Amino acid sequence: MPEVRAPRGTAYTAKGWPQEAAKRMLMNNLDPDVAERPDELVVYGGTGRAARDWPSFHAIVRELDELRADETLLVQSGRPVGVFRTHEWAPRVLIANSNLVGDWATWPEFRRLEKLGLTMYGQMTAGSWIYIGTQGILQGTYETFAAVAAKRAADAAGRFGADLAGTLTLTAGCGGMGGAQPLAVTMNGGVCLIVDVDESRLRRRVKDRYLDTVANDLDDAVARAEAAKRDRVARSIGVVGNAAEVFPELLRRGVAIDIVTDQTSAHDPLSYVPIGVDPAGAADYAAAKPEEFTDRARESMARHVEAMVGFLDAGAEVFDYGNSIRGEARLGGYDRAFAFPGFVPAYIRPLFAEGKGPFRWAALSGDPADIAATDRAVLDLFPENDALARWIRMAGERVAFQGLPARICWLGYGERDKAGVRFNDMVARGEVSAPIVIGRDHLDAGSVASPYRETEAMLDGSDAIADWPLLNAMVNTASGASWVSIHHGGGVGIGRSIHAGQVCVADGSALAGQKIERVLTNDPGMGVIRHVDAGYESAAAAGVHIPMERK
Amino acid sequence: MPEVRAPRGTAYTAKGWPQEAAKRMLMNNLDPDVAERPDELVVYGGTGRAARDWPSFHAIVRELDELRADETLLVQSGRPVGVFRTHEWAPRVLIANSNLVGDWATWPEFRRLEKLGLTMYGQMTAGSWIYIGTQGILQGTYETFAAVAAKRAADAAGRFGADLAGTLTLTAGCGGMGGAQPLAVTMNGGVCLIVDVDESRLRRRVKDRYLDTVANDLDDAVARAEAAKRDRVARSIGVVGNAAEVFPELLRRGVAIDIVTDQTSAHDPLSYVPIGVDPAGAADYAAAKPEEFTDRARESMARHVEAMVGFLDAGAEVFDYGNSIRGEARLGGYDRAFAFPGFVPAYIRPLFAEGKGPFRWAALSGDPADIAATDRAVLDLFPENDALARWIRMAGERVAFQGLPARICWLGYGERDKAGVRFNDMVARGEVSAPIVIGRDHLDAGSVASPYRETEAMLDGSDAIADWPLLNAMVNTASGASWVSIHHGGGVGIGRSIHAGQVCVADGSALAGQKIERVLTNDPGMGVIRHVDAGYESAAAAGVHIPMERK
Ligand SMILES: NC(=O)c1ccc[n+]([C@@H]2O[C@H](COP(=O)([O-])OP(=O)(O)OC[C@H]3O[C@@H](n4cnc5c(N)ncnc54)[C@H](O)[C@@H]3O)[C@@H](O)[C@H]2O)c1
Ligand SMILES: NC(=O)c1ccc[n+]([C@@H]2O[C@H](COP(=O)([O-])OP(=O)(O)OC[C@H]3O[C@@H](n4cnc5c(N)ncnc54)[C@H](O)[C@@H]3O)[C@@H](O)[C@H]2O)c1
Repeated sequence: MPEVRAPRGTAYTAKGWPQEAAKRMLMNNLDPDVAERPDELVVYGGTGRAARDWPSFHAIVRELDELRADETLLVQSGRPVGVFRTHEWAPRVLIANSNLVGDWATWPEFRRLEKLGLTMYGQMTAGSWIYIGTQGILQGTYETFAAVAAKRAADAAGRFGADLAGTLTLTAGCGGMGGAQPLAVTMNGGVCLIVDVDESRLRRRVKDRYLDTVANDLDDAVARAEAAKRDRVARSIGVVGNAAEVFPELLRRGVAIDIVTDQTSAHDPLSYVPIGVDPAGAADYAAAKPEEFTDRARESMARHVEAMVGFLDAGAEVFDYGNSIRGEARLGGYDRAFAFPGFVPAYIRPLFAEGKGPFRWAALSGDPADIAATDRAVLDLFPENDALARWIRMAGERVAFQGLPARICWLGYGERDKAGVRFNDMVARGEVSAPIVIGRDHLDAGSVASPYRETEAMLDGSDAIADWPLLNAMVNTASGASWVSIHHGGGVGIGRSIHAGQVCVADGSALAGQKIERVLTNDPGMGVIRHVDAGYESAAAAGVHIPMERK
Repeated sequence: MPEVRAPRGTAYTAKGWPQEAAKRMLMNNLDPDVAERPDELVVYGGTGRAARDWPSFHAIVRELDELRADETLLVQSGRPVGVFRTHEWAPRVLIANSNLVGDWATWPEFRRLEKLGLTMYGQMTAGSWIYIGTQGILQGTYETFAAVAAKRAADAAGRFGADLAGTLTLTAGCGGMGGAQPLAVTMNGGVCLIVDVDESRLRRRVKDRYLDTVANDLDDAVARAEAAKRDRVARSIGVVGNAAEVFPELLRRGVAIDIVTDQTSAHDPLSYVPIGVDPAGAADYAAAKPEEFTDRARESMARHVEAMVGFLDAGAEVFDYGNSIRGEARLGGYDRAFAFPGFVPAYIRPLFAEGKGPFRWAALSGDPADIAATDRAVLDLFPENDALARWIRMAGERVAFQGLPARICWLGYGERDKAGVRFNDMVARGEVSAPIVIGRDHLDAGSVASPYRETEAMLDGSDAIADWPLLNAMVNTASGASWVSIHHGGGVGIGRSIHAGQVCVADGSALAGQKIERVLTNDPGMGVIRHVDAGYESAAAAGVHIPMERK
């Protein structure tokens, strides 16, 4: 098993920066500082892979090194399957991961095919080579908790102030994504109690400074959390335990919890550790007896969600954080699983209607100074946006880079293209030392159909319509993106979502500038038209050509 | 309800031929000579629509008239949802129809969303604006019988020559699709004996000149068939009767039959007429006693298929023609029903592995002379291909155009691009009077995932992997196609398939020539890599860049 790390600097081996960028970002996804289990090619999300297997990885790297500027490499679930002559405006790589025909879109069939070596799970940014570590989720999580505070501050109850100071948030799952929660809560001034069945996950986050401390036991954790809440001190406390047992116990004890959510790996019942199962042996057990394990995991999730609904009934702000735990709990026999909402309709949708979503970029030089320069450029471009400025400054101080230096912030229609063009100009002028890669999560305004998460409870009922992510992938392919991907499953699991991604490379050329301007207009533009078509208000709609809205 | 018919000739209102072509082909799909129920926007296949509703149709036409050569119109299930600035190599239209997230990909959910006005059924070429009438079915059937001849010609037995001359084909079912069989067999030089329980179906096909004659009785039919076979004369003979009785009787008599298939409506046991039931009263009987009718139909299908297996044992070439009769016969208690294969694995897959599939084109002038000129060009380009030459000549004589004059033939990797570039040169030189539109069915070598039909029984078990049609759509978008579509459902229904289409416009420009060369190389190239990846032999593979096959 090779140790993979992206090359740094301005010397490169591919036939152009876009190809070199794809190669570096693929490698960066497997950097031991970035990936969850690099030896198995797993980047994040339990089984989200960057390539099908090692021979596929090596073949992709070789092809990217040889690929010409008018050729396109095709990747089918992590395996390079063809190179075709296209043209210079075309993407250099086209990727389709984990897609199955509807009637076969089930976990058992997916796993059967995976075992045959015919597919892999791409998650969102694992198989599309634009994962940047936990910063990606940190920013969204930070914004979500800020939105919770804002929403509850507007309440009559007066339990919340302007931020989360003096409030206690309970959550579980301190993994690749979920591990961002404690820092996001403390950045908002609150107290966070986070449960994970695997102590090493908590320890790792303490090392990263995402989590302040790990309690000795539940009594200790509760005591510390209550003290911090009382003293209005921002503090995060980890506790080892199974959430399906700890949540009901905290409810039973009547601990005064204000916000409840969860990011255990519930989207995949073979990854969620059932009550009574030792986490160390869980993977072997799941592999040996997948059906029995699934039944037990769902039963535990039913107890876990039942407790969350208990907190809801007691007046807490409760939301599903995009891991399908409500769906699994219902399959586990719990009827009220959908009593609390998903985070998207609750907090994110108004942003989506403006084309706002998780814009991210990475410095191919490997030099943190390049990100510092882009940070300054963003502050300069959007001086009126206080929340953005606060985030950029705090991120500069608190966020440790994993792999290639990178930054994320949420930008909307009319903003992303400005930032992208500016970055390209900076590359051209030598204000950064090498090209910048600009991409995003598949979780975006106009790039996903996911009825349990991004498109839950759409105004017109169009939650399950999957034309939009496919149009998104096609329009990005047609606008000049450097690589484009269509995935199935992602964070919510097989059968539950279809989503698309794009990455552009700012290499300082005039052509890159044109491509970036179009992709970063059209891509968030998809978010605007998708939401306008569903009946949402959008201030940005005035600037987009929408045929059925014309008078 | 307007009556729609595509404009003809060289004067046009759009801002370029690709836009004008998309508009004319949309309109042509709704021409009363082409569409099944044009007033409801239904083109074919029961509910396959060209646009969501009339306001959407009118808005699409208006947008296409105004669309610039660097803009792209997005169509979501028949509704125009956005126009974005792209570039001149980009498609002018991107289409996604009927797509649903896997867990929601069911008929009831689809119908619920359709009723809400949120989607439409696109079939394959209805919602992608490249349907050309029944010529498509005739040619596909012709191609299948040509492939049967080719396969048996390679046999040691020496029973078959280069075509079907001197062979007798037995089939049943002379309906909407099945009625193409007798003409397809005689076009291949063979003798066809076709059984239908309903005399009016046979008479109708005599009127269409798809069937030569209807025999007085079985003795007469056998005598005529044997005489034609002996004299090596191409001849089709219909006989009225129930296939479940006639097939066993012919087997008992030892009639020397070389090929056996069936296109009765076996997919629906309430449509297949059981032994002893008067066809005139069958529908009422089926409605009144569906379970009894189903049992009797399956029992009859068991006898029907048992006779087919009898012919197989006697050395005939026997295949299922996509109507599920094997499955029904097994339900009727016949164990050896799956002793013979389906037509795709048996004959079509080797063609798919060479990138061969249903290449079609239409003359935007409306002038049949333009198709005659392209017919001559195809004959000139591929002089060594006898089956192709026979088809082109006979189609010129026997096929009545519906709507804009059009032609279809199967061409493979390395052939389609040649034909496309030639057509574009002909437009440039004025050898045809207006541009030519070049497209295909979604049923093609590398454009569909459909485990009950096109991808049934793949060698490596990858039947349900849906990455391929998505990569196909993206690579065509990246290669210069004029419009590209991704559909769900098509001919096999919701939940059962995902497939993609592309159309190129040969307007005689140098740019069009480059685009056509790339699209018509890469599109069938997808068929080659999809089949090579699954383990099939492909002579064409030598000319395609396949990373995992490189030494
Ligand atoms: N906000 C979003 O929309 C979003 C984004 C990304 C991921 N997700 C979802 O969030 C979930 C977590 O993602 P991740 O990348 O952190 O996954 P992960 O596999 O890295 O981490 C999951 C964590 O849950 C823990 N865990 C499992 N069962 C448990 C139990 N019963 N009790 C306590 N802890 C348990 C594991 O030990 C692990 O640390 C996934 O379902 C993912 O799909 C949501
Ligand atoms: N190649 C393919 O993959 C493909 C394509 C299209 C249709 N099909 C299948 O082919 C079948 C025929 O399609 P169609 O559109 O022609 O259907 P249709 O309903 O128009 O015609 C069926 C014909 O079968 C006759 N028939 C019924 N029971 C009979 C019996 N016992 N003996 C003799 N004749 C009998 C009917 O009289 C009728 O003429 C369907 O099952 C369809 O699904 C397959």
